[in-house]
Amino acid sequence: MPKLSEKGVNMPESPIRKLVPYAEKAAKANKKIYHLNIGQPDIQSPKVAMDAISQHGVEILAYSRSEGSEQYREKLAKYYQSNNIMVSANDIIVTTGGSEALLFAMGTICDAGDQVIIPEPFYANYNGFATASGVEIVPVISKIENNFALPPIEEFEQLITPRTKAILICNPGNPTGYLYSKEEIATLARIVKKHDLFLVADEVYREFVYDGQSHYSILEEPGMEPHGIIIDSVSKRYSMCGARVGCLVSKNRQVISTALKFAQARLSPPTFAQIASEAALDTPASYFEEVIAEYQERRNILVEELQKIPGVTVGRPKGAFYCIAELPVANSDDFARWLLEHFDLNGETVMVAPAGGFYSSPGEGQNQVRIAYVLNKESLIRAVKILEKALAEYPS
Amino acid sequence: MPKLSEKGVNMPESPIRKLVPYAEKAAKANKKIYHLNIGQPDIQSPKVAMDAISQHGVEILAYSRSEGSEQYREKLAKYYQSNNIMVSANDIIVTTGGSEALLFAMGTICDAGDQVIIPEPFYANYNGFATASGVEIVPVISKIENNFALPPIEEFEQLITPRTKAILICNPGNPTGYLYSKEEIATLARIVKKHDLFLVADEVYREFVYDGQSHYSILEEPGMEPHGIIIDSVSKRYSMCGARVGCLVSKNRQVISTALKFAQARLSPPTFAQIASEAALDTPASYFEEVIAEYQERRNILVEELQKIPGVTVGRPKGAFYCIAELPVANSDDFARWLLEHFDLNGETVMVAPAGGFYSSPGEGQNQVRIAYVLNKESLIRAVKILEKALAEYPS
Ligand SMILES: Cc1ncc(COP(=O)(O)O)c(C=O)c1O
Ligand SMILES: Cc1ncc(COP(=O)(O)O)c(C=O)c1O
Repeated sequence: MPKLSEKGVNMPESPIRKLVPYAEKAAKANKKIYHLNIGQPDIQSPKVAMDAISQHGVEILAYSRSEGSEQYREKLAKYYQSNNIMVSANDIIVTTGGSEALLFAMGTICDAGDQVIIPEPFYANYNGFATASGVEIVPVISKIENNFALPPIEEFEQLITPRTKAILICNPGNPTGYLYSKEEIATLARIVKKHDLFLVADEVYREFVYDGQSHYSILEEPGMEPHGIIIDSVSKRYSMCGARVGCLVSKNRQVISTALKFAQARLSPPTFAQIASEAALDTPASYFEEVIAEYQERRNILVEELQKIPGVTVGRPKGAFYCIAELPVANSDDFARWLLEHFDLNGETVMVAPAGGFYSSPGEGQNQVRIAYVLNKESLIRAVKILEKALAEYPS
Repeated sequence: MPKLSEKGVNMPESPIRKLVPYAEKAAKANKKIYHLNIGQPDIQSPKVAMDAISQHGVEILAYSRSEGSEQYREKLAKYYQSNNIMVSANDIIVTTGGSEALLFAMGTICDAGDQVIIPEPFYANYNGFATASGVEIVPVISKIENNFALPPIEEFEQLITPRTKAILICNPGNPTGYLYSKEEIATLARIVKKHDLFLVADEVYREFVYDGQSHYSILEEPGMEPHGIIIDSVSKRYSMCGARVGCLVSKNRQVISTALKFAQARLSPPTFAQIASEAALDTPASYFEEVIAEYQERRNILVEELQKIPGVTVGRPKGAFYCIAELPVANSDDFARWLLEHFDLNGETVMVAPAGGFYSSPGEGQNQVRIAYVLNKESLIRAVKILEKALAEYPS
């Protein structure tokens, strides 16, 4: 039998997908499962986008340009400008989801053995992309006690080595819901300027910011042109996860021309999905107002309900649609599996994402889970009730 | 200014896209360009697929499963079975184009520094994927004099080292149009079994085989289960290049479960495109009969017309829709640029792909170009006429 790559063997399994076989068994046994584990919103995609697809009129489904259709990029640049991110179509490469933008960014700035500093906990698939690219993630640990605020600047500087190429942040954060302040972005900007690094910001949750706060992008910060790379996506913004359209944005011409070579090798991003994404830019403001109000209410309910459970600690997320909760369990992997395999409350149970996979430091997050508030309010209340009963019964 | 990766700097520019700025200038100057340079067919996509998209009915455009939708994979398995490739849905991972399947295959079997043997000339983007993955391509040179037949088995065996992980073939071949015989596949199978390697076959042109010949897949060859990996795509089969749907097929469970981890990291292939691809499987046989008859006629005309030009040598492709032509020029890069910049025949010129980019051996293919027959017959005749005049005028 020929041998697989070490990289392939070491690729982490997605912490969410690992539980899927147990969920499938539970579903077969007619258990109803409340899915608090995934980042798949239950919100409808904008009608204007879905209608554009129905009316496509395509006869030859051709490759688009590798950097994405001109028309879409022009319109997208206007969206950024209206968000005070002053970029033009030439600063944008359309990718197959934010996922591919992350891969292109790593390929563009890192060789095998290079290091990227990432505040931890972080989006689990950063581990996968890093492994695929041979990149070492160096975590800076942020703590639930501080509501996941950025650690002091010295902690970053201590970690910088000659192999450090970038700092990567997710803002607002998955899985923490953390929103970086303008001052924190300025601090990060100072570090990357001083040490000549890139600052990569995954801003796919830009729209989802609560309590009247506002999002401050790394490209709003002065002097970031050579350093800043934004990762973006239509997946969450328009609840169009299945489109597979994202983008990489940078004012650094070398970054764009290098990322473009990666883009050319894979030919083009999906054509239909670009049609939908372009149309989605006409989504009325009222859509976002409703969606954001909905998420904010859900967050409030989720956090309130969780706080009622003895032994549970939960941060108050300021953005995105996740939170990390600390549970009175020793091993959240085991607990999450047990919820699916051995527990039910009147035939119902919940599925959560064990938080270990959101850390690269071994042993971190063992008593934490990530909860996504992508269910309606009634379901959330019910799901937390089930979680409470389960914690009381769990034979830890 | 922070430094880019060496990998990024070394990423080859696509040999086709390199000429695009010259083509754009020519087009601006109102020159009409016959595009013989690209693999974008002018054939209509199947109506059944385009109609499925018009009638999509999607309200929440959700992620599909990372391995592709169950329903599509089940139906796709039947397509393979009807082609005597005995696989099931579990042996298939749906990817974002054949491009992503190639990346997943390299990631699954190769670490940085590993080697893959590839008959040369080969699809230019193999160079890009290899660079992105840190993989070294070891070419086995096939010659236009032999119509690009596989070199003797000893030539392969001489190249095998402890870092060799796989042999990669493209069948039928881009850019040569070469179709491997059953005996050649058996020979390759013997080599990979003896040396415990993978055999990766890029079969995206499976359908396009002429002169009543038939395609023999590596997974039709007995005993290839642990070794064989097929790369496939709907791009050419259904003229749906913009869909971005392909797949990786293997009977080796470890290969599938490892490739699945790469697939999970990027979440899912595009949803709309999977709807189109599933519907495309109902394309009537008459569609392919017409398309194949059309390509065969085009090939005949192209080869006949090229052979009339003094100093031009051209192979007779048995499949796909490309051929390599040797021209009486010293540097086809320069000639291709000159065609766009300095030549026209009554306001018309042609764009060809210089063949250097289809080799990894420096200096090979300098007097060759790749010509794609993705234009109708009248245009092909006219384009070759222009090429003839250009060759007569070219100040070499
Ligand atoms: C923080 C973050 N970045 C990137 C992605 C990738 O999403 P996509 O590839 O669908 O754009 C996700 C998806 O959940 C995410 O949460
Ligand atoms: C030989 C070969 N393999 C793979 C591909 C990739 O195609 P896609 O990613 O559109 O499936 C192409 C495209 O031209 C090709 O010619």
